[in-house]
Amino acid sequence: MSVLVVGSVALDTVYTPNGNVVDSLGGSASFFSMAARHFAPVQLVAVVGEDFPQEHIDLLGKHEVNLEGLEKAPGETFRWSGRYSEGYVTRETLDTQLNVFASFHPKIPATYADSKFVFLANIDPTLQNDVLDQVKDPQLVVLDTMNFWISGARAELDRIISRVDILLLNDEEAQQLTGKAQLSTAAQEILAMGPKVVIIKKGEHGSMLLTKDWAFLASAYPVENLIDPTGAGDTFAGGFLGYLATQKDFLSRESLRQAAVYGTIMASFTVEAFSLERLTQATPTVVDARVKAFREMTEF
Amino acid sequence: MSVLVVGSVALDTVYTPNGNVVDSLGGSASFFSMAARHFAPVQLVAVVGEDFPQEHIDLLGKHEVNLEGLEKAPGETFRWSGRYSEGYVTRETLDTQLNVFASFHPKIPATYADSKFVFLANIDPTLQNDVLDQVKDPQLVVLDTMNFWISGARAELDRIISRVDILLLNDEEAQQLTGKAQLSTAAQEILAMGPKVVIIKKGEHGSMLLTKDWAFLASAYPVENLIDPTGAGDTFAGGFLGYLATQKDFLSRESLRQAAVYGTIMASFTVEAFSLERLTQATPTVVDARVKAFREMTEF
Repeated sequence: MSVLVVGSVALDTVYTPNGNVVDSLGGSASFFSMAARHFAPVQLVAVVGEDFPQEHIDLLGKHEVNLEGLEKAPGETFRWSGRYSEGYVTRETLDTQLNVFASFHPKIPATYADSKFVFLANIDPTLQNDVLDQVKDPQLVVLDTMNFWISGARAELDRIISRVDILLLNDEEAQQLTGKAQLSTAAQEILAMGPKVVIIKKGEHGSMLLTKDWAFLASAYPVENLIDPTGAGDTFAGGFLGYLATQKDFLSRESLRQAAVYGTIMASFTVEAFSLERLTQATPTVVDARVKAFREMTEF
Repeated sequence: MSVLVVGSVALDTVYTPNGNVVDSLGGSASFFSMAARHFAPVQLVAVVGEDFPQEHIDLLGKHEVNLEGLEKAPGETFRWSGRYSEGYVTRETLDTQLNVFASFHPKIPATYADSKFVFLANIDPTLQNDVLDQVKDPQLVVLDTMNFWISGARAELDRIISRVDILLLNDEEAQQLTGKAQLSTAAQEILAMGPKVVIIKKGEHGSMLLTKDWAFLASAYPVENLIDPTGAGDTFAGGFLGYLATQKDFLSRESLRQAAVYGTIMASFTVEAFSLERLTQATPTVVDARVKAFREMTEF
């Protein structure tokens, strides 16, 4: 079963304690796709500008990401720039240039009609609602969002949250959305808003997957060489939803846990290098070995 | 096999978003003992002042903590006071009055000679070295320390670290001790200093147990009502070492993992109330139920 992602394809400039990178391939849809394609065919909807390097398009296409929905618009590509502090304690956004992304109106190509597993990456919730209107009979919809929309577009955000199966957000966003400091309490409030499952991402501290009836706690996979955490959350989403798209009983306790583990493992590759460098190289053998190592590090 | 703890017995005044408590029973040796006694007899060495309430002594004694090594000295009991911020994001120490603790010279009673499992709680490393000199043929020694000694008593701290089997410290202390931001790197440096095992405590984010050959990642147990995190680390140590004292093969991979889980679970009781209130009430049935729930929340 194929997976649809609607989000950003960007050019990232990132400064870290372990080096810098300028105008590298980034964006939520890029990271998501490169992780999800390990498990299922991916259909991407995003926009780039006239300046977008052909090599990035070739890279995604070569890894079986369907780019029919990648629009090329007049103007420049969305650019983001950020700096990680010593020890990766904090991240500061240095610059955001929306460029062609400012007037992005996602259109899902007719050929994507078989995509029943949908990831609505972090964009304006008005557009997320509009995208979901275009999907016929979705089987599973996962939503991501961020602080900017929680404070600035609450009505549209509440509407899209009520329409999705799974909400993915980080700890601070869960607290901001609900006004509850305690994450398990925040999660229950979110579940009362509509989603069947909420995943709270805690960066280097892993993630919590919660339903009304049970919870799953996943540590982050401890990498030896942290280089660039940018895109880890979207990579998690790609591993998570990509795996679920291969499962018949995709909302079962068993499937959701395995999916969270695959999300965790795929994210561990992303943070080991800049951009998609390491994630692109990960083979099924390497992925499975890391899943096995992760089990050995957590079972008792 | 009984367990020996040398540390503090204190009167804590704590301010939290969920209430305050004045002059409540606290101190590393108190929390450790009340957790460890679930598994093994505990022998305590500490000092209190003439003002120390008899009810606290009765409480510890009633729970089979041997108090022959609890010295009563002229003067007032060690007092600590702290405040947790909204959402328990930070903790500020408001006041520390060492009182009788300032001239504490731990003496291990002759009747404690069978204590082969030793916890050297966070005190001056010179005293920790002195205590260890008094223990004949220890089988397993666990050490705790803090930032104050890392910066202020480095030579004596290095000496005691080289003499113990297991070092327990938090993430910031591991980074300060080694100068390495990456916790897995910091852990390997610590292992090169002597200990066979290092446990890095990450508070609400759980803990990592590392050896040269393998690692174990434990999430924190997600409590419904966080009240007071004070003493969680020492409670972890009590559950951890108490469990190990019941195991013949106490340095095996299997034993160390189970011990870390028991430490995690015992700490979850401590944070659900002030002082030792909840920890004291925990029965073996309740402890086992929480271990089972924890397994269900983490296995995949």
